[in-house]
Amino acid sequence: MYTLYYSPGTASMLVHLMLLETGAPHRLQLVDIDKQQQKDPAYLRLNPYGVVPTLVLDEQPYTEAAAIAMLLAEHHPESGLVPARDTVAYDLWRQWMLSLSHNLQASFRLWFYPQELGNVSHPEALSQAIQQKIARIWDQLDRHLSQQGPYLLGEQFSCADLYLTMLMRWSRNMPRPATEWPALRALTGRVVQRPAWQRMMEIEAVDPWPRDLQS
Amino acid sequence: MYTLYYSPGTASMLVHLMLLETGAPHRLQLVDIDKQQQKDPAYLRLNPYGVVPTLVLDEQPYTEAAAIAMLLAEHHPESGLVPARDTVAYDLWRQWMLSLSHNLQASFRLWFYPQELGNVSHPEALSQAIQQKIARIWDQLDRHLSQQGPYLLGEQFSCADLYLTMLMRWSRNMPRPATEWPALRALTGRVVQRPAWQRMMEIEAVDPWPRDLQS
Repeated sequence: MYTLYYSPGTASMLVHLMLLETGAPHRLQLVDIDKQQQKDPAYLRLNPYGVVPTLVLDEQPYTEAAAIAMLLAEHHPESGLVPARDTVAYDLWRQWMLSLSHNLQASFRLWFYPQELGNVSHPEALSQAIQQKIARIWDQLDRHLSQQGPYLLGEQFSCADLYLTMLMRWSRNMPRPATEWPALRALTGRVVQRPAWQRMMEIEAVDPWPRDLQS
Repeated sequence: MYTLYYSPGTASMLVHLMLLETGAPHRLQLVDIDKQQQKDPAYLRLNPYGVVPTLVLDEQPYTEAAAIAMLLAEHHPESGLVPARDTVAYDLWRQWMLSLSHNLQASFRLWFYPQELGNVSHPEALSQAIQQKIARIWDQLDRHLSQQGPYLLGEQFSCADLYLTMLMRWSRNMPRPATEWPALRALTGRVVQRPAWQRMMEIEAVDPWPRDLQS
């Protein structure tokens, strides 16, 4: 039995989605970000950086959304969220998970947490620079998907597509959201139709997204 | 035969080190950053982000230093740089590689590339904020190593320790380099004694580091 410490709409969404995709028995434990529960001493013992998600299995806490998604994909290979080991597809899958974490999720952190760069809110020039940094990543991903899609691994769906879709959702209130890039938008259309995505959105009760693609 | 596109002292150092640790046949291809060769069209076809390293195997390019290090560790399990699959140690190894990439390497990028945040050089307040962001990570890592070390996985050495040591080296000219944290310093002392580290430093011909630990 997995226990997921989560907060709706945050990076824990990917892990929640993976639990639903794999059908793994789990329970959800809300971490109330508005009450700063992610900085409670008891939670910091599970997750020293004081962020969600944390997944606990057999009393062992695991952190880092992308790493936990990979763990679940590999613990449940029958779910088809990871290519077979020792293949080029597996090596590229690992690379996508790392790249989305290192380039895209880390850039969103700058966008959402100006205090980590010493600001209450970002000065306009810095805000523009972060938007451009993220837009350049959408450019690359859109080019890749339009040439080698429809999924990041071509015809093969994997949890990297779930991760990318969650990160695209984070751009919904930016001046230029990811769904303005056509191949990214097409991927979104596929992923949000998955029963696990729909169930996850229902349980987390966050805003429907993207509004014009929802049934 | 692997081909590594590298530039001395950059993130490609981790991949170079892994090639030497595994003893895998390889050739080195210098990418001259001073001449902006990482932005050459031919290189961008291998690595769309225009960064080093890129590793090519059987005409397939691989990117993202941490992902390539994991690939090499898994292609060469006899080298003992990755725990056995399907163990808790393996899941924690994956987590460390992701965490060092997402938290630490991404923060260094802010430090070394002010132009990506729209600055020629960072204003003092932003510079301080980035230093604090990195120092908080050293705090966490040092606490972990002092309680559960000497390596990131306890008694078991892995490529995560090589990755961390390379990232520590990047702090050498910061006001407070990582070697001022005692458990991090102790890890450095172990890693820089490895023949592969010494050979890599010799080939890349970068400044000896840390000066007071070198023989």
